[in-house]
Amino acid sequence: MTQDKEPASAEDSLIARYFKPLATDPGAFGLVDDAAVLSSSGEDIVVTTDAVVEGVHYLATDPPDTIARKALRVNLSDLAAKGAVPAGFVLTLALRSKEDAWLRPFADALGEDAKAFGCPLLGGDTVSTPGPQMISITAFGRVPKGQMVGRTGARPGDRILVTGTIGDAALGLDVLIGGGVATALAADPQARDMLVARYRVPQPRNLLAQAVRDHATAAMDVSDGLAGDLTKLCAASGVSATVDVASVPFSAEAAGLIARNAVCVETLLAGGDDYEVLCTVPAAQSDALMEAGRAVGLGITAIGMIVAGHERPRFLDGQGHELALKRLSYSHF
Amino acid sequence: MTQDKEPASAEDSLIARYFKPLATDPGAFGLVDDAAVLSSSGEDIVVTTDAVVEGVHYLATDPPDTIARKALRVNLSDLAAKGAVPAGFVLTLALRSKEDAWLRPFADALGEDAKAFGCPLLGGDTVSTPGPQMISITAFGRVPKGQMVGRTGARPGDRILVTGTIGDAALGLDVLIGGGVATALAADPQARDMLVARYRVPQPRNLLAQAVRDHATAAMDVSDGLAGDLTKLCAASGVSATVDVASVPFSAEAAGLIARNAVCVETLLAGGDDYEVLCTVPAAQSDALMEAGRAVGLGITAIGMIVAGHERPRFLDGQGHELALKRLSYSHF
Repeated sequence: MTQDKEPASAEDSLIARYFKPLATDPGAFGLVDDAAVLSSSGEDIVVTTDAVVEGVHYLATDPPDTIARKALRVNLSDLAAKGAVPAGFVLTLALRSKEDAWLRPFADALGEDAKAFGCPLLGGDTVSTPGPQMISITAFGRVPKGQMVGRTGARPGDRILVTGTIGDAALGLDVLIGGGVATALAADPQARDMLVARYRVPQPRNLLAQAVRDHATAAMDVSDGLAGDLTKLCAASGVSATVDVASVPFSAEAAGLIARNAVCVETLLAGGDDYEVLCTVPAAQSDALMEAGRAVGLGITAIGMIVAGHERPRFLDGQGHELALKRLSYSHF
Repeated sequence: MTQDKEPASAEDSLIARYFKPLATDPGAFGLVDDAAVLSSSGEDIVVTTDAVVEGVHYLATDPPDTIARKALRVNLSDLAAKGAVPAGFVLTLALRSKEDAWLRPFADALGEDAKAFGCPLLGGDTVSTPGPQMISITAFGRVPKGQMVGRTGARPGDRILVTGTIGDAALGLDVLIGGGVATALAADPQARDMLVARYRVPQPRNLLAQAVRDHATAAMDVSDGLAGDLTKLCAASGVSATVDVASVPFSAEAAGLIARNAVCVETLLAGGDDYEVLCTVPAAQSDALMEAGRAVGLGITAIGMIVAGHERPRFLDGQGHELALKRLSYSHF
């Protein structure tokens, strides 16, 4: 414990210097209060919270600007999948030190994303820790009353749709830790950079929120691996599913690695950090959702169908054989 | 990183086992979703976030049930000072292990407090950390639109009031770390226990929220030390203050230690973790607030007055001499 004789504590100075510029919402009171106000005109406030820990969710060697973006974007991704429009966030920052060289790019990038996604900083807490750094964000969104898209509404016959591509982030992590992917792509720096960027800076699909609300019976973001997350969605809805693995969208980089047997498809299906939207849609509305995706420049792919039953989702290869997935998802324990 | 082949990840099982019983609000969806809904009928939602870190805000040897209560109560204390009625909270738990011997009493105590204070669990995130454990809570309260009590409304002539007693928690921490207070109270286990309890389990003043809203021009909870927190309140309001140190409320235990010269008053004024409400009230309403305190069994004491000016608040002893406070508050850096 250290003591401080300044009228404003060092913690307050740190907040004022780095984070006050991000607190553009009137409800943040310029961060001079220890509470913020989120006004509502009768909409529902959607609340989501996700923390990232150094060495667990990001690497100690990741640049501070990408850490900031990832910390906010994993929460924005939740809001997108729930059909909510971002309204603001609060930040808990557990720091080992207050080096400007780390905090300045961290705060600047966080501010850029807060602005770009319309999600201002409302408040926060800065604490010291002797351990790994940790960033915990609670984000808020707005939806018309009763219209948050949950996980329990998937019905047999619904199509299963997913945005973007699956597995790139897991490959990017493997590049960063010098795994087999790094070796396989030794001569292809562009592919390595693309995959690393997918790991470090997720692209939350907030432009799709309205369409998810309009069409999806259930939705979630893919954060722990497609296979495991679909399993959770099915369990919450009391249904099962069949997935046509040949139709799961992979990037050209991922497809190339599969074709060369450098990675297996199971790794991609279970790899985390995709931050794509996974949703179920009545068959008659599946084209409308895909069209809404095209309108915002986002690929959406139908990968299977919800079926009656309580068994785990089945992942079928091109010959109709079920893949034996040893791992469904990333787990912290 | 570990992988898990169960359909529900170990993290999900942990949440279901320990925390689902706390998620009594319909907006929590039984924690099967990764987002929650906070409904509003047009009130303002007050948001506050406070984290506690092992070794910084609590001791590794503190019992898990008191750690849980402290983590929630430091946030409830913020809501009380803002005049807000608790509505719910989200929890980020950074754990080294998932031992039942720690998690069970932690979750049970958290559930008891959530019920007692009408503040149900809405959602959360559980992450692993190789470092110290950390509990970050974001709590929500409701106030009528525009009625959150801020820090900026204190005006010259307002009385400065504080609930309960000041400095006990700092003394309790000194007992726990075997400091001078432990020695001075070697023969008085009851006094030691009382002070330790004040450190470990704050008593947030939520019963006073309505009266704070009715009467206070500015308010905050005393978390970092009375002297420093009053300094912040004055700075936010653009005023100064004089405090009559002889009128600052101390417990019998604290007063006894001062009388024996075992501690000095400055330590109590700057010691953190009080979690009392500090507020400013127009002179004509100061009796009404004190009466509201009596109605809920809570002592409230007038300790000084807001004055015009921008200098730091002055703390005057019984002879009108200003105390030279070397430290105003606890600071994390």
